[in-house]
Amino acid sequence: MRIIICGFGVVGQSLAKLIESRSEDLYARYGIKARIVGVADSGGSATDPSGLDPERLVAAKKAGSVRGYPGAGGGLTGGELIEGLDADVMIETTVSDYTNAEPGTAHITGAMGRGMHVISVNKGPLALSFPSLTELAEYNRVMLRFSGTVGGGTPILDFAKKSLRGERITSFAGILNGTTNYILTGMAGGSSYEEALADAKGRGYVERNEALDLDGLDAAAKLVILANWVMGMKVTLGDVDRTGIRNVDTGDIREAAAAGSAVKLVATCDGGLRVAPERIPVGDPLCVDGTLNAVAFTSEHSGTQTIIGRGAGGIETASSIIRDLLDIRAGMARE
Amino acid sequence: MRIIICGFGVVGQSLAKLIESRSEDLYARYGIKARIVGVADSGGSATDPSGLDPERLVAAKKAGSVRGYPGAGGGLTGGELIEGLDADVMIETTVSDYTNAEPGTAHITGAMGRGMHVISVNKGPLALSFPSLTELAEYNRVMLRFSGTVGGGTPILDFAKKSLRGERITSFAGILNGTTNYILTGMAGGSSYEEALADAKGRGYVERNEALDLDGLDAAAKLVILANWVMGMKVTLGDVDRTGIRNVDTGDIREAAAAGSAVKLVATCDGGLRVAPERIPVGDPLCVDGTLNAVAFTSEHSGTQTIIGRGAGGIETASSIIRDLLDIRAGMARE
Repeated sequence: MRIIICGFGVVGQSLAKLIESRSEDLYARYGIKARIVGVADSGGSATDPSGLDPERLVAAKKAGSVRGYPGAGGGLTGGELIEGLDADVMIETTVSDYTNAEPGTAHITGAMGRGMHVISVNKGPLALSFPSLTELAEYNRVMLRFSGTVGGGTPILDFAKKSLRGERITSFAGILNGTTNYILTGMAGGSSYEEALADAKGRGYVERNEALDLDGLDAAAKLVILANWVMGMKVTLGDVDRTGIRNVDTGDIREAAAAGSAVKLVATCDGGLRVAPERIPVGDPLCVDGTLNAVAFTSEHSGTQTIIGRGAGGIETASSIIRDLLDIRAGMARE
Repeated sequence: MRIIICGFGVVGQSLAKLIESRSEDLYARYGIKARIVGVADSGGSATDPSGLDPERLVAAKKAGSVRGYPGAGGGLTGGELIEGLDADVMIETTVSDYTNAEPGTAHITGAMGRGMHVISVNKGPLALSFPSLTELAEYNRVMLRFSGTVGGGTPILDFAKKSLRGERITSFAGILNGTTNYILTGMAGGSSYEEALADAKGRGYVERNEALDLDGLDAAAKLVILANWVMGMKVTLGDVDRTGIRNVDTGDIREAAAAGSAVKLVATCDGGLRVAPERIPVGDPLCVDGTLNAVAFTSEHSGTQTIIGRGAGGIETASSIIRDLLDIRAGMARE
C-alpha cells in the first residue's frame, strides 16, 4: 500500500513512527504492507517509490523540512507530489483552515482525481464541503475516511456508524473541543476566563489561531462532520448556529454550580445544528471535565449512549489513521 | 429468516413486537424477512412454519403461556422444538442461571448441532462455558452472538471489537450491574444499605434470586463474556475473584465521598479478573450513577475510552438482538 502524506506535523510524524513500529503486526494481522512513497511539508518534499524510511523522515523534519531527507529530498509542493507520484492512499494532515480550506481541499480533490483513496485528519475541507467531497469520492470510486477529525483516537464516528447500525439515531449532543472544555473546567475551579485561557495556552492546548477554539469553530466543524456522516444530512459550516465561550463569565459558572450543573460548550444536532455554552447536570455522562471529549447519541430503540475519550494527541490521531487504512484495505480487497 | 425463540419473558415479547413493527424497514434496508416459526416458554409452545403472529403470541403469553396461541399451541419444550422444527436462528432468552446454566446450554448446543445460528441474551451458558461454546459454533460452522448480554442496548461488545479494531486493548474496567449501582448511588445519597435495597426492589430492579446482583454474579458473568470476546482469554466464571456489595457500609461510602470518590462495584480485567467494591474519583468518566452501566477500555495507542448507557430494559435488549440478526444475515450472505 503506497502512501503519500501531505503535512508533516505532530500527526504526520506520529503516523510515520506508528507505521514503522507496527509494520510486522499490520502485515501479519491485516495483510497491509504500508510504504510511504512521498511526503510534503511547507518546506518541500521527499519522494522514493520504493519507500521512505520513517526515522530519517522525522530526523529531516526536526532539522527543518523533509526536503533534507538524504538523497530523496526535493522542492515539490503537496499538489505536485500528488500529480506526479503513483500511490494508493493520500493522507491529508495539513492545518485545518475554515476560510478557504486550502491547500487541503486541493490535495484531496487532486488525489481523488488520480484514483487515490483519501484519509483526512484536516477538518477544513470537510467542514466547508463535506457533501461535494463525498460525491466526488463516489464519482471517482475511491474511499474518503476521516476518523481522526472527531475525537482524535476515540472512535466516535465509527461507533455511531457501526456499533449502532440497525438503529436510527434521532439526535446527538457533544463536547467536541477539549481546549474550551479545559478552560471552562478551570473557571469552574475558581479561575477567571483570562487565567484559565492563559493556563490552557501555557500547556499548548490552544490553536495558534485561538478563534478556532474560543469561537467554537473547531466544535462546529466536528458537528458538521458528524451530522453528515451519522445523520446523512447535507450541511456545511455555514449551517451551524454558533456561539463561542468568550462571553461566559464566572457568574454564569457559579450560578450553574449552585444548580448542580456545569457550563459546557455543547454541539447539538436535533434537527438544527448549534454550538453554544449550555448547562449540563454534573451527574450527566456528557458532563466530562478537563480536555475530555464526549458525545451522547440518542437512538430510537436503544436509548442514549455516551462515548468519552481524549480528543487529541498525535499518537491517538495517528492510530485513528491506521484504523482508516484497515477500512480502506478491506474495501480494496472487496473490489 | 426462520426464528425460534426460547423463553418468552420481557425480552422475548419485546423482540416479537420489534420484529413486527420494524418488518418493512428490516426488509427494505437489510433484506431480512424475519419469521417466528416457534416459541417455547415454561408452559408450552407455539409453532407454525409459515410464521406466528407476534401480537397473538404476546396475547397468549399474557393469558399464561404461548401454548394458548390459537390453533398453533402445543406442549413442546424448548429442546423438543429445536429438535423437530427447521429454523435458521435460535434466540435463547431464558433466565440466566449460574449453577448449571440449564436449559439454556442445552438449547444452544442443540440448535448448533442442527446447524442453527444462535443469539443468546442468557448469560449463564456463556459464563460457565464460553470457550467450549465458541468451539462448538466453529465446529458446526454457525455463528454465536450475544450483544444483549453486556450493556443491554448499549453496544459495548461491538464497540470493543469493531470500533477499536486495529488496536490492542490492554485492560478494561466496568460498572456492569445497574442494580448494585443503583443501590450504591442510593447509599451515597444518605440511605442505609437496607433502605437502598428495598428501594431497588420496589422498582423491580433486583433479580428474583438477589444473590445474582448483590454477590456480583451478574457482573462477573459479564466480565467473563467481555474477557473472552474482547481479550481472547479462555476463562469462565470460576476464574473471577468476586466480592459483592453486602459488606459495603455507609461509613465506607462517607469516607470515599470525603476523598472525592464514590464506591462502585467494579469489574476489572487487567491480567486477572475480579469483581469488587472499589473507590472511583467522581470526575472519572467511569463514575456513573443510578442504573447506568459504563466500561472503560484502555488500548495501546488510543488511550482510554469509556462507553456509557443504560444496561437493561426489554426493548433495548431486543434491539441488540436485531443487531445480532443483521450480523448473522451479513455472515449468511458471505457464505
